[in-house]
Amino acid sequence: MDIVKYQKIIDKFANERNWDKFHNPKNLVMALAGEVGELTEIFQWLNESQSKEIINSPTDIALVEEEVADVFIYLIRIADRLNIDIEKAVSEKLVKNAQKYPIELSKDNATKYNRR
Amino acid sequence: MDIVKYQKIIDKFANERNWDKFHNPKNLVMALAGEVGELTEIFQWLNESQSKEIINSPTDIALVEEEVADVFIYLIRIADRLNIDIEKAVSEKLVKNAQKYPIELSKDNATKYNRR
Amino acid sequence: MDIVKYQKIIDKFANERNWDKFHNPKNLVMALAGEVGELTEIFQWLNESQSKEIINSPTDIALVEEEVADVFIYLIRIADRLNIDIEKAVSEKLVKNAQKYPIELSKDNATKYNRR
Amino acid sequence: MDIVKYQKIIDKFANERNWDKFHNPKNLVMALAGEVGELTEIFQWLNESQSKEIINSPTDIALVEEEVADVFIYLIRIADRLNIDIEKAVSEKLVKNAQKYPIELSKDNATKYNRR
Repeated sequence: MDIVKYQKIIDKFANERNWDKFHNPKNLVMALAGEVGELTEIFQWLNESQSKEIINSPTDIALVEEEVADVFIYLIRIADRLNIDIEKAVSEKLVKNAQKYPIELSKDNATKYNRR
Repeated sequence: MDIVKYQKIIDKFANERNWDKFHNPKNLVMALAGEVGELTEIFQWLNESQSKEIINSPTDIALVEEEVADVFIYLIRIADRLNIDIEKAVSEKLVKNAQKYPIELSKDNATKYNRR
Repeated sequence: MDIVKYQKIIDKFANERNWDKFHNPKNLVMALAGEVGELTEIFQWLNESQSKEIINSPTDIALVEEEVADVFIYLIRIADRLNIDIEKAVSEKLVKNAQKYPIELSKDNATKYNRR
Repeated sequence: MDIVKYQKIIDKFANERNWDKFHNPKNLVMALAGEVGELTEIFQWLNESQSKEIINSPTDIALVEEEVADVFIYLIRIADRLNIDIEKAVSEKLVKNAQKYPIELSKDNATKYNRR
């Protein structure tokens, strides 16, 4: 996926609407949190199995797809406004996670490293 | 960015730790919300200008990068577990947004379409 | 619980630290979201039964209590800054909920009224 | 405000609808996060002054009141399900905050104690 391409589309979209004044990092983080709230609402009353089976309901999965897209759009917009290279950030974080969660300590155990 | 490549790395990481039992969509959405909460905390006391200037503080921007990475990792993990094609979902959402926010109605105005 | 009493304590606390400039409604809502993120993190990997049994772990329930307190403190601070009478707002919302979720339609079914 | 009174009203409301199966702490924390997301959405594009002036818009402040009520309702519901005494938790947290944020270190500075 060419993330920069989508960042440019979103930037053009915002520029055409004079939304630059709204799209500072603080506001965008709030907008991201709002979209994650909508995603959360879809899953709040489902149990874990039902949350997997949602994949079989075309109506529900369409809702999830839309919220996932909204979260993604705001996230790459934030990265764009702050000159963050997402792929680099993700690669580095995955290395860090491997150090924080060594297999022998983390097997069957998702306890956060600083509470272990 | 080859998102599927990173989804496979994350999947291998989770499998090696037997974290499959934790990584159902419901739990992953909660984990996503938790990471967005950490991103929110970084920006909560900054005003809008300060939220832009964070880019000039290597310590702060490193924190932001890490949280953006965490959000991204959980988001593509959710998409993986629910067979969501992120690029397709994003493309479709951008088309939908263009319909919901026509330039003439949305210029200088970010009011949500259903409250306009 | 005398909520106004606690609002006054929090107000004094903020005033003594010159935190008034930070405590506008927008920032306080972000702070609230951050605290809810911390509460979410405690529960993210627990299944539903484990989330009930957390009551039996003094360490875990102490963490939950602290986050619940943080959420409560920011919530009544927001209400204070916006002259919202929480008890009135809650009473009115409970009446509204009874109208939106009549027993016959909502029995065994927590589907949001606008998706029913 | 007699919080126990409202907890009983909410409990009766949930029982009449057989919602006990939905109202475990994990699900309620997600519902809380969802409501906070709705509150966040109201403030996301406002600047700090506008977030204060929202008090002058009867339509907007009514929306805020409703979301504040929703957050409050889920929060006292969580406390009820986990036998948490909110007033005790809040009192203890306020004492802790006074220790973590001594006036001399925190004046004009809201930096989180563990990043100071």
